[in-house]
Amino acid sequence: MKFSFTPLGCASALPTVNRFPSAHVLNVHERFFLIDCGEGCQMQIRKAGFSFLKISEIFITHMHGDHLFGIYGLLSTMSLLGRKSDVTVYAPAAFKTVLDSFLLHFGASFCFKINHVAVKCSAPEIIFETRKIEVLAFPLNHRIECYGFIFREKPPMRNVHKYKIVSDSLTLYEIARLKEGLDVVRDSGEVLINSEFTYIPYIPRSFAYCCDTAPFTLLPEYVRGVNLLYHEATFTKDLKQMAMETFHSTASDAAECAKSANAGKLLLGHLSARYKDNLTILQEACEIFPESEIAEPGKEYLVDIIKPD
Amino acid sequence: MKFSFTPLGCASALPTVNRFPSAHVLNVHERFFLIDCGEGCQMQIRKAGFSFLKISEIFITHMHGDHLFGIYGLLSTMSLLGRKSDVTVYAPAAFKTVLDSFLLHFGASFCFKINHVAVKCSAPEIIFETRKIEVLAFPLNHRIECYGFIFREKPPMRNVHKYKIVSDSLTLYEIARLKEGLDVVRDSGEVLINSEFTYIPYIPRSFAYCCDTAPFTLLPEYVRGVNLLYHEATFTKDLKQMAMETFHSTASDAAECAKSANAGKLLLGHLSARYKDNLTILQEACEIFPESEIAEPGKEYLVDIIKPD
Repeated sequence: MKFSFTPLGCASALPTVNRFPSAHVLNVHERFFLIDCGEGCQMQIRKAGFSFLKISEIFITHMHGDHLFGIYGLLSTMSLLGRKSDVTVYAPAAFKTVLDSFLLHFGASFCFKINHVAVKCSAPEIIFETRKIEVLAFPLNHRIECYGFIFREKPPMRNVHKYKIVSDSLTLYEIARLKEGLDVVRDSGEVLINSEFTYIPYIPRSFAYCCDTAPFTLLPEYVRGVNLLYHEATFTKDLKQMAMETFHSTASDAAECAKSANAGKLLLGHLSARYKDNLTILQEACEIFPESEIAEPGKEYLVDIIKPD
Repeated sequence: MKFSFTPLGCASALPTVNRFPSAHVLNVHERFFLIDCGEGCQMQIRKAGFSFLKISEIFITHMHGDHLFGIYGLLSTMSLLGRKSDVTVYAPAAFKTVLDSFLLHFGASFCFKINHVAVKCSAPEIIFETRKIEVLAFPLNHRIECYGFIFREKPPMRNVHKYKIVSDSLTLYEIARLKEGLDVVRDSGEVLINSEFTYIPYIPRSFAYCCDTAPFTLLPEYVRGVNLLYHEATFTKDLKQMAMETFHSTASDAAECAKSANAGKLLLGHLSARYKDNLTILQEACEIFPESEIAEPGKEYLVDIIKPD
């Protein structure tokens, strides 16, 4: 079951020739989530080979244009491609009037519905879930209302050892109980101890997205133990003052968060256009958190399955 | 005095990996006009090496998203770059509420003014002019209100032959009169015949932009004699029926227009995403009008000075 993250754009407010504004696709079990929707994201989606029609959930962190202005073209293209199924946008309440205005002017021929779920929370909160996946939103520390997101697999059902099914002649009822983690008491009085019959197939994986934000004490707590953390690193530490004034993070801030949260890996994005090469940003982060990498548009980052010992 | 046209995007409604939606820069005497403003045009402007701050006039043909959705990011970037001087957008009346809504949500920190000149005409009409340049709008034949534009040099002042200034001891007053095309009568009764003293430095150049439109009888008349004609060619002639239904042109339609208008050169753009290579489109146009070319994003097309014989 695939779990992977593909950045489409990792620029900050000013895009460059090679760096588009924020937009990313997360594939969790072949369900494709779009995270932020900066200008040009429809061209980047096409370039990366994703299907427009498979994206049904869009998560917008905040109402700054570099995270949002691609949604107009994306929804229009979905309409032109004959989309019929709903799209749901998880975004702050302020998105509603922007969406209404857009639909009023450009949505007359749309044959699909666009739902808006207003994100509002002061602590991590589940905003979307399926049987196997859940998405949590949590507040960030930016100039305007802004949210981060955690996408994670729910704890899986336990697997029953195949040889036990045969050796103990397990019934379907017994297997179902065991998969749920329960012991089974047979009519004969025999007790099937769950841990002797089952194992955890995998440890649930998780990905967190933190952009845009200044560092704050609770953030590592919110993203504790994620396998992959995407964290903005708009500036290097020599511009810490500017980062603070604009409510952004430095590469050091991002790395400190990853270290403190005990994340598996850190991806750095939302880089200021002033950095022509990203080496300084990367070095700065790696000194604090060696498992750091610069997010490269179009590259697929696997959130690896961690097999239990 | 430079006069050149640089396409930034020549896709039709659905952009492709290599083809952005409609946007183009016209340089007339180092004054930079943006013609249409499709999504991603700010990235394309940067890539082509134009300065955001030198663009002060934007011409929008019609209110379809693929000609417009780049304006949000462009104006935001201009603001972030510290722009102080006005931007004027020439666009149909319907642009006003879109602009107002945009400014309400995203324009709070803008330090420059955005003027909207509502284009409305049923025949060619001057909508912008300087001492040396004029821009005319004219109606096109699309599904919604849509305008084409002609950008042209005004007839230049006549130049006075340098050797005549010396040989006839011309005064400043006499030179000024001659430059205006007038004869001069000296106090002595001597008449300085204008044609003997002056020459036309160049024939005024012109560029016309026709996108989106179905063909119509008056169009060649509107763009008669332009040096360079950009004309949409969304389809090839085998899809003529589809072109008619959607109020677009085929490559043949574009070429017929160029031929009938006696244009100097034809650039074909707004190509449907269904054409993977552009050879069929080009061949179809060249059979009717050999001076046809596919508009290539990032390439600068010079509108050459034609020296009089």
